[in-house]
Amino acid sequence: MAVSPIPSRAELAQRFAQVRAETLARTATLTPEDQGVQAMPDASPAKWHLAHTTWFFEAVVLAAHAPGYTPFDARFFRLFNSYYESLGPRHPRPQRGLLTRPGLEQVHAYRRHVDAALRRFIEGADADTWSAAAPLVQLGLHHEQQHQELIVTDILAAFWCNPLLPVYQPVPGPRPAAGPTALRWIERPEAVAEIGHAGSGFAFDNETPRHRVLLAAHRIADRLVTCGEYLQFIEDGGYRRPALWLSDGWAAAQDAGWTAPRYWIAPDDSRAPAAHWQVFGQHGVQPLDPAAPVVHLSLYEAAAYAHWAGARLPTEFEWELAFGVDGVRQMTGHAWQWTRSSYDPYPGFRPLAGAVGEYNGKFMVGQLVLRGGSIATPAGHARATYRNFFQPAARWQFSGLRLARDGTC
Amino acid sequence: MAVSPIPSRAELAQRFAQVRAETLARTATLTPEDQGVQAMPDASPAKWHLAHTTWFFEAVVLAAHAPGYTPFDARFFRLFNSYYESLGPRHPRPQRGLLTRPGLEQVHAYRRHVDAALRRFIEGADADTWSAAAPLVQLGLHHEQQHQELIVTDILAAFWCNPLLPVYQPVPGPRPAAGPTALRWIERPEAVAEIGHAGSGFAFDNETPRHRVLLAAHRIADRLVTCGEYLQFIEDGGYRRPALWLSDGWAAAQDAGWTAPRYWIAPDDSRAPAAHWQVFGQHGVQPLDPAAPVVHLSLYEAAAYAHWAGARLPTEFEWELAFGVDGVRQMTGHAWQWTRSSYDPYPGFRPLAGAVGEYNGKFMVGQLVLRGGSIATPAGHARATYRNFFQPAARWQFSGLRLARDGTC
Amino acid sequence: MAVSPIPSRAELAQRFAQVRAETLARTATLTPEDQGVQAMPDASPAKWHLAHTTWFFEAVVLAAHAPGYTPFDARFFRLFNSYYESLGPRHPRPQRGLLTRPGLEQVHAYRRHVDAALRRFIEGADADTWSAAAPLVQLGLHHEQQHQELIVTDILAAFWCNPLLPVYQPVPGPRPAAGPTALRWIERPEAVAEIGHAGSGFAFDNETPRHRVLLAAHRIADRLVTCGEYLQFIEDGGYRRPALWLSDGWAAAQDAGWTAPRYWIAPDDSRAPAAHWQVFGQHGVQPLDPAAPVVHLSLYEAAAYAHWAGARLPTEFEWELAFGVDGVRQMTGHAWQWTRSSYDPYPGFRPLAGAVGEYNGKFMVGQLVLRGGSIATPAGHARATYRNFFQPAARWQFSGLRLARDGTC
Amino acid sequence: MAVSPIPSRAELAQRFAQVRAETLARTATLTPEDQGVQAMPDASPAKWHLAHTTWFFEAVVLAAHAPGYTPFDARFFRLFNSYYESLGPRHPRPQRGLLTRPGLEQVHAYRRHVDAALRRFIEGADADTWSAAAPLVQLGLHHEQQHQELIVTDILAAFWCNPLLPVYQPVPGPRPAAGPTALRWIERPEAVAEIGHAGSGFAFDNETPRHRVLLAAHRIADRLVTCGEYLQFIEDGGYRRPALWLSDGWAAAQDAGWTAPRYWIAPDDSRAPAAHWQVFGQHGVQPLDPAAPVVHLSLYEAAAYAHWAGARLPTEFEWELAFGVDGVRQMTGHAWQWTRSSYDPYPGFRPLAGAVGEYNGKFMVGQLVLRGGSIATPAGHARATYRNFFQPAARWQFSGLRLARDGTC
Repeated sequence: MAVSPIPSRAELAQRFAQVRAETLARTATLTPEDQGVQAMPDASPAKWHLAHTTWFFEAVVLAAHAPGYTPFDARFFRLFNSYYESLGPRHPRPQRGLLTRPGLEQVHAYRRHVDAALRRFIEGADADTWSAAAPLVQLGLHHEQQHQELIVTDILAAFWCNPLLPVYQPVPGPRPAAGPTALRWIERPEAVAEIGHAGSGFAFDNETPRHRVLLAAHRIADRLVTCGEYLQFIEDGGYRRPALWLSDGWAAAQDAGWTAPRYWIAPDDSRAPAAHWQVFGQHGVQPLDPAAPVVHLSLYEAAAYAHWAGARLPTEFEWELAFGVDGVRQMTGHAWQWTRSSYDPYPGFRPLAGAVGEYNGKFMVGQLVLRGGSIATPAGHARATYRNFFQPAARWQFSGLRLARDGTC
Repeated sequence: MAVSPIPSRAELAQRFAQVRAETLARTATLTPEDQGVQAMPDASPAKWHLAHTTWFFEAVVLAAHAPGYTPFDARFFRLFNSYYESLGPRHPRPQRGLLTRPGLEQVHAYRRHVDAALRRFIEGADADTWSAAAPLVQLGLHHEQQHQELIVTDILAAFWCNPLLPVYQPVPGPRPAAGPTALRWIERPEAVAEIGHAGSGFAFDNETPRHRVLLAAHRIADRLVTCGEYLQFIEDGGYRRPALWLSDGWAAAQDAGWTAPRYWIAPDDSRAPAAHWQVFGQHGVQPLDPAAPVVHLSLYEAAAYAHWAGARLPTEFEWELAFGVDGVRQMTGHAWQWTRSSYDPYPGFRPLAGAVGEYNGKFMVGQLVLRGGSIATPAGHARATYRNFFQPAARWQFSGLRLARDGTC
Repeated sequence: MAVSPIPSRAELAQRFAQVRAETLARTATLTPEDQGVQAMPDASPAKWHLAHTTWFFEAVVLAAHAPGYTPFDARFFRLFNSYYESLGPRHPRPQRGLLTRPGLEQVHAYRRHVDAALRRFIEGADADTWSAAAPLVQLGLHHEQQHQELIVTDILAAFWCNPLLPVYQPVPGPRPAAGPTALRWIERPEAVAEIGHAGSGFAFDNETPRHRVLLAAHRIADRLVTCGEYLQFIEDGGYRRPALWLSDGWAAAQDAGWTAPRYWIAPDDSRAPAAHWQVFGQHGVQPLDPAAPVVHLSLYEAAAYAHWAGARLPTEFEWELAFGVDGVRQMTGHAWQWTRSSYDPYPGFRPLAGAVGEYNGKFMVGQLVLRGGSIATPAGHARATYRNFFQPAARWQFSGLRLARDGTC
Repeated sequence: MAVSPIPSRAELAQRFAQVRAETLARTATLTPEDQGVQAMPDASPAKWHLAHTTWFFEAVVLAAHAPGYTPFDARFFRLFNSYYESLGPRHPRPQRGLLTRPGLEQVHAYRRHVDAALRRFIEGADADTWSAAAPLVQLGLHHEQQHQELIVTDILAAFWCNPLLPVYQPVPGPRPAAGPTALRWIERPEAVAEIGHAGSGFAFDNETPRHRVLLAAHRIADRLVTCGEYLQFIEDGGYRRPALWLSDGWAAAQDAGWTAPRYWIAPDDSRAPAAHWQVFGQHGVQPLDPAAPVVHLSLYEAAAYAHWAGARLPTEFEWELAFGVDGVRQMTGHAWQWTRSSYDPYPGFRPLAGAVGEYNGKFMVGQLVLRGGSIATPAGHARATYRNFFQPAARWQFSGLRLARDGTC
């Protein structure tokens, strides 16, 4: 982040307005009650996302850099801290759904208060202050975009717990009926790849430093695995054959009783009886689309599928190297793509200084990297070097997979 | 219940209107968000209480007895069933707080729909139908009154989880500063007591049959234990002396870290710092009132206090025998009073026929009887023979204690 | 206990020798490894029972009353305390099975050390000391007899976890093939019963004080429920019909997947395949004997069976009143019999003074009374007023049931 | 493994005898009771290790390749399977400590039975059979050596739960009092390293295929971190400063209450009071040796220490590259050394065919690589390419750390 060129004040002010508006837009169809609910400890209420992204600007930018800034409510500093140990104690994560106060209206007022203060700050900060704070404003915008995606995935997790299976967004119109094309393998010879952020434009600290990685020859699929293909895996007993699974994955699947991706509804399931498979999602319950990329998979399911298909998951380096290569499709905007890479620091990695140093680095154990970006990722947010990460059992994100294979033909 | 004389149609219609209005009145200060929250599995959202009490009339009265009744939404039949196995599957209790839909407005509409149908039913049912259904209407009203108290206790449990400690009801005015009178012991000689409901007026099945119990001579306190007295127990190390406690109680206190009644705030506690003890309740955080009855105790704490005070808890029979005796005060309207009686069936107990047979009898193990009635109990709901019951570790009710002693002076 | 006449020194010395020998006899078929294992937190290793019963004499009698007594190993004082808070900290109960040291040989030496010291004490204590200590010696013997039964039930719990299903005691010989007689109901008119220990002979404090209880007319079965009868309950869907069950019982049965009494092996179960039902017990796996009393039931199952049979469980007072009545059989020596009585204190109950006051009183909540005595109860240990108690979900004891009904014909 | 040259029959027979004898030697000071205990689900009883390593030869070699082999007890096939799904169901891991039968003597007999059969097989197998089975025999020996180390770590875990803190091995004699030398940094320029097993001698499948990795310039410490150095970290508040910790590590430390390495005993701890720090280990409780390598650390503690020391953990590739480099000491035989590398498959990794394919590959998620070898690792077992792996919270192994730093001076 530190090395990124900072946009001008005018440009940042405009982006600030856009990003903040987009966050609200994603809650437009939700009632105040919807926005308060927390389906599970990993998820958060939409209202909490609205407040926490605001808290970020208040705690990291305004409180630290804007002289005379008056907090909207001093108690929010603790209430809406997510995980920053250096910024003091915070409300327990599993109890975010119990915060009926402040109400949604008050959180909206909080947003307006901070919006106004931030706008004034962008305009009026002196040059030294601005040079210190501008990277944090920029970081705050990318941070907020991450929460925009979580607003969608977290509300789906909540609606899934409701037998009424509410609809988040009405169906936008008829979908094209085109089936998927046949999968093609893109050959990649042995190479030394430049991996990580190159220094132009914004990047998170975990994408740095750019460094060279030696990659063996391999093949990578030109598109994502589809729902139709994944259904074949299910029908071939994929969820009943331990030999296909990682050990932890098999245990997780047995414990939780997984028999299909999260949000898939089997024929004649009592939740939404039908003669065929259905899938719950942003538009409520829809018939399974065989051509659509499969999502809402854990790493374990993705790896088992790949095993079954005689392939493997790509490493995050293979994925990054494939970005922009002719003929490789669906790299971003469709699904986050599990890689076979643990979320480890890059050689020479240094977290940012200060509280924002807790942003990424302290999570570098026990998680795996996903690359790409999904239908819920805000436009312009993802990039070739972007490293998303989740624990291997996580299924409530828009997480799918792309296949890879060792060697070339 | 079966033997109670049933009020006239006009009288029941009037009572129905009153009870239904009182339920709504108890939610008047709550936002829609407040009404959706569930603090713990034992508690329920206010909105759920609104819906479930309505469901009772729909499922037990209208669906069974009103020809041509059209349900408001057939899916509610499952959504708002609490624990009636004979009425089919139901939404899991710990997930009641996840039901953001139906929204509060829709639940209000559900109430209006059932209210109207029930009024028509009371007016128009033929005599045979009425004679079968009227006891169920009456039961439904007493059922709803029980949930009125739970609306209060459950919202306090939720607000207590919020660092902002919201206020449920503004303070109604200055309280009288009068201190408690000295405790007096009322002497009770050996006697055969008639215990249980006598057959006039409504009673739950668990209050029957009326039967004779032989009681040894004993003394019973003329008033409840006060906050000031309980504070002495705390200051005397009551929470640190296992010899005062039942074994399960000591374990529960250690596991949960109890050092005072639920909702007591120690001096300088970070939640609401002050130089003195405070108590959270319906009116938010208030200074501890030494003269007020102590509430929000578990059975374990009540029994430990009694042990410390050189006394014991009364049995439910001793309590019932003391009801109406000259000089015994605070029997109802102040606090539910833990007794030393396990919640066992009376000799000859028979549950009601049909689904309502699940109302009381199936809970007759592992719980203890509380007698009396609290500040949150609706007027006219409690009576001398009323048996409330909770598990011994429960603290979120308005549960206090009255002392007793063996023998007479 | 305090009021019991104390046997003479000679008599106590003889009983001491007998009881101590019987304890060892019950471990004779067990290897040192068998004696170290703890199947579940509620159970204890046989070696621990050997040591703890010895500890009781050391801690309660010798350390307190025998001048100059030298402990075998001062560390055992903490290691083998079970639950006496007043005697200081103790080894955590769930970790008793981890104590491979002291080894069995050392525990045997510990027993011999305390045996010798106790014998010397019985012989040599001066009159005042003896008068204070003799009741504790007597209590220690009854305490050890209770653990004799637990040695049997706890080792069965351990062997049941072993797929090899080891045999605790070889089959003693062919059993009589006689079937059960038809159940007869003994009629009992309304009466005031004298309940509790009368003051002659030893009793635990929880059997006192003797007091009068008014009992309504009822009928009580002349024998226990048999395995054959219980099998009919199973075959009639008893484990699939929630209407028969207490609410907590149904939840426990679903959570644990109960479909039969503990230790019953269904036909073709992979543990011990056969064409018919089998039962695991002291003699290993045996064919189910339809005439034998059913045991290893929880209170929940016993109550559900009684419900199914159109009857109920007796209260502990009804049971005690029936003791010794002509025609009532199998009162003791066959199975502990669940009653419908919660384990509450008798009116006027006072625990013993000192550490032994923790023996019974502090457990008087959340448990139910069993009466009778089982095939594993040492001869002479049980009596008409004896109150055994366990939590309602406990199944590893020899716990069965006898039916009762309200009223008379 | 498949590509390793197989030793001759005579050589394998000799190694077989040696390895089998060493396993027994490691249990020589343990009683039968000691050998049955399981301190926690992750650990296993010594007796189970004796049986399971035998089972491996029986199930993988004899049952599959030795015609006419008669199993010692067919039930052991299920009883002593560890995690091989393809070899059928198995006894639950957390219940290994409940298997008092077969007794230790019987397990010894089982070992002798399989030893004899295996010796006959080595001598008599025809050439084709031998060529298929010899790699499995060799694998079995390395497998047994892994369990030899676990015998030590698992019995320490058990003894640690015993307040008597038993001694596994008497102290072998006075230790040299020499302090550690000053830490030196070994400089390593950027390089392409050949990583993984080269094909000569035995290796596990997870060490293959050998491949090239591009390493940036870095420095690596010439020795392990010592207890004295780690004590400074503790005294500097290392366990109280979240900024030093990975997020999961901080949570684990708080949940478990870590304040020092496992087995460290603070001054005046009630377990073994003293005026100075002590450490429990193979020789019981000993004074902390400041010069000894610190062990029994989780990855989280190792990473926090490195952070505090202004360094980091090496990657497994950096470690492997340093092996054999002049001046780098304590690479093996002192402690397993946590690396910053997740346990991921090498490019082109293929598990072995058949059941032994479950040996390593299915665990490649959620664990981290340790390199080196400890004081408990059998002589000749470890090597430069050896990849040990454990979950990051594991502390019961002999796990310490070596520091590294980015760049060169």
